[in-house]
Amino acid sequence: MTEIRQNIATKEWVIIATERARRPGEFAHPRQELTADRPAWDPTCPFCPGNEEPPPMEQARIPADGPWQVRVLLNKYPALRMEGERDRHFEGIYRWLPGVGRHEIIVESPRHNTCPALMTPQEVARVIRTFQARGRDLAQEPCIEQIIYFQNHGPDAGTSLVHPHSQIVGLPVVPSHVRSRSEGARRYFDDTGRCVYCQMVREELASAERLIAVNEQFVAFIPYAAFSPFHTWILPRRHYSTFLGASPEEIDDLGIILRDVLSRIYVGLHDPDYNYVIRSAPVHDMGRDYLHWYVTVIPHVTKTAGFEMGSGMFINVTLPEASAAFLREVQPVAG
Amino acid sequence: MTEIRQNIATKEWVIIATERARRPGEFAHPRQELTADRPAWDPTCPFCPGNEEPPPMEQARIPADGPWQVRVLLNKYPALRMEGERDRHFEGIYRWLPGVGRHEIIVESPRHNTCPALMTPQEVARVIRTFQARGRDLAQEPCIEQIIYFQNHGPDAGTSLVHPHSQIVGLPVVPSHVRSRSEGARRYFDDTGRCVYCQMVREELASAERLIAVNEQFVAFIPYAAFSPFHTWILPRRHYSTFLGASPEEIDDLGIILRDVLSRIYVGLHDPDYNYVIRSAPVHDMGRDYLHWYVTVIPHVTKTAGFEMGSGMFINVTLPEASAAFLREVQPVAG
Repeated sequence: MTEIRQNIATKEWVIIATERARRPGEFAHPRQELTADRPAWDPTCPFCPGNEEPPPMEQARIPADGPWQVRVLLNKYPALRMEGERDRHFEGIYRWLPGVGRHEIIVESPRHNTCPALMTPQEVARVIRTFQARGRDLAQEPCIEQIIYFQNHGPDAGTSLVHPHSQIVGLPVVPSHVRSRSEGARRYFDDTGRCVYCQMVREELASAERLIAVNEQFVAFIPYAAFSPFHTWILPRRHYSTFLGASPEEIDDLGIILRDVLSRIYVGLHDPDYNYVIRSAPVHDMGRDYLHWYVTVIPHVTKTAGFEMGSGMFINVTLPEASAAFLREVQPVAG
Repeated sequence: MTEIRQNIATKEWVIIATERARRPGEFAHPRQELTADRPAWDPTCPFCPGNEEPPPMEQARIPADGPWQVRVLLNKYPALRMEGERDRHFEGIYRWLPGVGRHEIIVESPRHNTCPALMTPQEVARVIRTFQARGRDLAQEPCIEQIIYFQNHGPDAGTSLVHPHSQIVGLPVVPSHVRSRSEGARRYFDDTGRCVYCQMVREELASAERLIAVNEQFVAFIPYAAFSPFHTWILPRRHYSTFLGASPEEIDDLGIILRDVLSRIYVGLHDPDYNYVIRSAPVHDMGRDYLHWYVTVIPHVTKTAGFEMGSGMFINVTLPEASAAFLREVQPVAG
């Protein structure tokens, strides 16, 4: 018997196909070369020290003087750039606007052969702090409505450069996907007077069967209606709409728990390709009390197919409870 | 300068990143083995004649007597099955229902080394007629709310068996993705008194710059806000909510144009992995006059990444007009 579970925050249905269930460990398949096996410096890598392109590509470097630890660059082929007006234009019945916005790269380390799973918690927190500092700057730009923070790790996750880096995109529109998530949270709040994400934190802590890790500020778990194996949510315990409002203590704790989760995935699944994303309120909706920011981690261990495209639903061939138990058992990289 | 285009039917925004634009032909990369290069019969393939599993897996065969041309099977590992009640259950704050529904496979040909691009238009129409016959049966089941028809071609499209086959899933819920598409079409209808899909057919025929092929009953084009290179829509000219109401003439013409489009993709891009999906009204919404069924074809020539996951928006690195011009120029397989 399979079951269809609903994510109460997003209203998405997921088929948990327990009949074709695979054991979580079966998803492990080693990369040709693990991140840790690469050289620490690559003469052909544009992000390695010594190969840096000169300013004006560089937006920021940390520390400001001496050898850098984190570097912020303008994307060389930006999807968006801070030029012109974001007025809508019409072309027959269609509409478009110029690609106004911002697209930046964060080079996370001078070391070529690392990734958050292998960094120290402090190094991961430094990257998150850089996300926040850049996000606060972008939120001041009148044309920016939504900021997307993400990391692509590996070719199946959409990156070609292996040097550890992540990206920030400032969008001049609120995507309909973000709007519909907000709408789901608003409806739940209107019905119950409560934040659906806070409810999930309480429920996950109480049942504990889908937990991966917890610390003072955060709870990491596989959602009840996880859409793929090891799809993970990391929620701040403190109710707040936007990542831009995360406190220094929260950022330190996020560095610890994000590294812990990614490191269990690295060890348990042999460094699979993955994405992580920080989901945060639209810039002008920060005051909405039904929104709650969080981090999603999505390892790429299965393929999406026509069913997912046709229905927007997913088939997950593992039990979220089994995936969580598997990751709880993994010994993370010492850090 | 990049531009952000809106799909007026789905309200989704797509960044058309013309600055990093690649020429459409650059997406062609040969498979290790083209479909046509495989043997016509494979002794290890469960779908090849002679290897058939006996009934009760078989639901239908065409023709009913003698060697089959098309076969309908129950999926051996069904995501859903016609058993039990679809009542909602509660588990703490969460909800689930049993996996009630239907999951069938259509084996499209006895030949191992074919695919719709290489079939005759009549063979493709026979598969579509089988979709419709099975869909009409499923629509009679009280527990089924939505029927998804799709094909996965190749491993990146989510299939492991290469023998040409497609799938039908009858769902006991209307996915939120389908609801939000309906909602978009309803709003357009309320605003303008017109079907947004009919408007798009008119606009595409008038401008002609994104057309791939047309015939008496259908129009195939790259949408103005295509979310990936070669993302194609095939729309019936006749306004109708559901594929279940397609006439015999429409099915014949769909066989011709779907084969034509897939065959241009096969030749022009060297048999890439792809999905196609028939998008049709929920079973109990067939009477809605703002819905219009159609077919979407999605070749897998790029990867989605954290940006897409975080925003629900896509970055398309080709101009839809250039992709359409490229496919118009390709000589399809003779058939």
